[in-house]
Amino acid sequence: MSTFHSRLAKVQQQLISDGLDAVLIMSPAATTYLSGCYLLTQTVIPKREAYVLVTGSGHASYLVCNIEEKMAREDSWIEDLHTYVEFKEEPATAVSRLLHQHNLTHARVGIETHTLPTASAQLLRDALPFCTFSSWDTPMAEIMMIKEPEEVAAIETAGRLTLRAITHALTHAAPGSSERAVFTAMMTEMMSHGLYPMFNVFTSGPNTLLVHGEPGSRSLQPGDLIRLDVGGRWPSHYLSDMARTAVVAAPAPQQADNYRKLYNAQMETIEAVRPGIPISDLYHVCAASYGRQNIPFSMPHIGHSMGIGLHEHPLIHPGETTLIQPGMVLNIEPFLADPVRGEGYHIEDLVVVTDTSYRLLTDPTPELIVVPG
Amino acid sequence: MSTFHSRLAKVQQQLISDGLDAVLIMSPAATTYLSGCYLLTQTVIPKREAYVLVTGSGHASYLVCNIEEKMAREDSWIEDLHTYVEFKEEPATAVSRLLHQHNLTHARVGIETHTLPTASAQLLRDALPFCTFSSWDTPMAEIMMIKEPEEVAAIETAGRLTLRAITHALTHAAPGSSERAVFTAMMTEMMSHGLYPMFNVFTSGPNTLLVHGEPGSRSLQPGDLIRLDVGGRWPSHYLSDMARTAVVAAPAPQQADNYRKLYNAQMETIEAVRPGIPISDLYHVCAASYGRQNIPFSMPHIGHSMGIGLHEHPLIHPGETTLIQPGMVLNIEPFLADPVRGEGYHIEDLVVVTDTSYRLLTDPTPELIVVPG
Repeated sequence: MSTFHSRLAKVQQQLISDGLDAVLIMSPAATTYLSGCYLLTQTVIPKREAYVLVTGSGHASYLVCNIEEKMAREDSWIEDLHTYVEFKEEPATAVSRLLHQHNLTHARVGIETHTLPTASAQLLRDALPFCTFSSWDTPMAEIMMIKEPEEVAAIETAGRLTLRAITHALTHAAPGSSERAVFTAMMTEMMSHGLYPMFNVFTSGPNTLLVHGEPGSRSLQPGDLIRLDVGGRWPSHYLSDMARTAVVAAPAPQQADNYRKLYNAQMETIEAVRPGIPISDLYHVCAASYGRQNIPFSMPHIGHSMGIGLHEHPLIHPGETTLIQPGMVLNIEPFLADPVRGEGYHIEDLVVVTDTSYRLLTDPTPELIVVPG
Repeated sequence: MSTFHSRLAKVQQQLISDGLDAVLIMSPAATTYLSGCYLLTQTVIPKREAYVLVTGSGHASYLVCNIEEKMAREDSWIEDLHTYVEFKEEPATAVSRLLHQHNLTHARVGIETHTLPTASAQLLRDALPFCTFSSWDTPMAEIMMIKEPEEVAAIETAGRLTLRAITHALTHAAPGSSERAVFTAMMTEMMSHGLYPMFNVFTSGPNTLLVHGEPGSRSLQPGDLIRLDVGGRWPSHYLSDMARTAVVAAPAPQQADNYRKLYNAQMETIEAVRPGIPISDLYHVCAASYGRQNIPFSMPHIGHSMGIGLHEHPLIHPGETTLIQPGMVLNIEPFLADPVRGEGYHIEDLVVVTDTSYRLLTDPTPELIVVPG
């Protein structure tokens, strides 16, 4: 069975078991997952909505802005392609037409309530007054949560290329370089291996406490901590997301100690990964490691699943009871703030859950990375 | 009056004139505009919602995820800062608490219906059953539509740096280079001048007809057309968005002719820009130029306003009756498909509307850019 038919069958089976007649998918990640087509504009121009409609009979339709028709025709495995012309018709009006064509005028339809804008939901309700719409956020997320081997391979490649770019840029930097110069070298290395930059946290010295700070003109001085959290998209729509901490020249004993404790907490958490236990267990293992090592723990979550989306279900937080299952990909990313030194430390690596435990997709870094002094 | 107080006063005045008691802003661009703080995660992790509440008395509150508290404290001019802890509380629940604190329990509240997710709107309605919520998408967009001089300066700098990076990369490329290599050189140049890459359309040869195609391993051959549409964010949250077309070695006569006609259409459209006429006039001027030059016209829109958001109001389409006003920034971007050659041509430049006409923020390129042969 092809990837498409296998995904479609999962959606069909789940929507039937949920007592629905159809589901209407429009979040960029899930639309990409079901269509096989990545539309850049679905993210950067949110009004340019794209939809996948799946019916209880297992039929899939794909609706895109007519500007994207050629792309959708070439890249998507869904043959039943429909388009709308921007400004002539609202995307939600076009998709309600599609539901009419399928005689889904008195249907129970699952929607992604965390993504579908209020205005689009209202248009759907107005055009289909006899339909009932209900949240299908969690079932869709749960289907995407178990990665296929090809997905794991793409995520692993993206992660390894990202780690290589990070290591290369930091070990070729020097005191006096600006944050921006080192960041640019890192992104250049990523792009030259085919990753499109997606986000860019790169801070040094006192700015390392800004969780999502961006690189500036600050010049790196011996003893400075560098904290980064970067990611790319590879080859067309799987993400990397990796955090690392480095020091310029040589670490102070306290810096080395902070990092070692953070690394210990990460490794203890990773080693706890196995199928059958609730995700929240990983959070508690991490918190306990912080406690034992006497470092302050205050993270609302310590990691997340990832794939086409950056934060995919489940996130590793204390209220998450989902059981760990083979095929899940998890980013484990503890963060440590040292308020005395005014520094933030961060590390983030990827594992895939196997039948009995886990496999590392990226290799954690046991010591602070050192920018040559 | 500070930038903040001037923006706040505009919002306050408009919401009162619309008969509202408060407005709740949460689209990333408008939240950044009102708070002065750019939160990377608001875009890349959409569930991490941030809100600005403005009341009829002119009070502004800012609600962010507690992970972003330090960033918001340092970067935002809104002093009344509130936070929520992810997974303990839904952002919409936290913002409804804020409305309760302001005694806005029986209020008329404007919301951004094109951005606010259905689930968050439902939480608000459930928590505030006596409030009425109505669309405030257009008024917010109209306030942001008229740029302040500092905004125009940021957009101009971003645009000029982008054009310089494009020109540099193309004129230093050579036949045999891959799309990816030239694209990477372009982005490296952009980043080294402080622009964070935002999107990346870069195609060559037959792929130039893929409106939003991304760079791959295809190697550039003499005679190949190159079409690109790239943008960055500078210095923290203003965007550039620029399209250019180039040819490897020397253009065929038909290529030079196609480009010249596209450039003519762009210039005729730009020269029509002046305050007081409806935006749709620009669309018709462009279409008429295509007609006169006997080239096929099929674009649903031929440009858009831009600022913190990529496609800001108004877009230049035939149904858009908004009048052109001083302070608007407009991207003029005609596209030409040559189905016989199987090529797509694109050019995009920026103007700001002045009291009597327009000023170019980036300089249009009258001939195809040539990659040295």
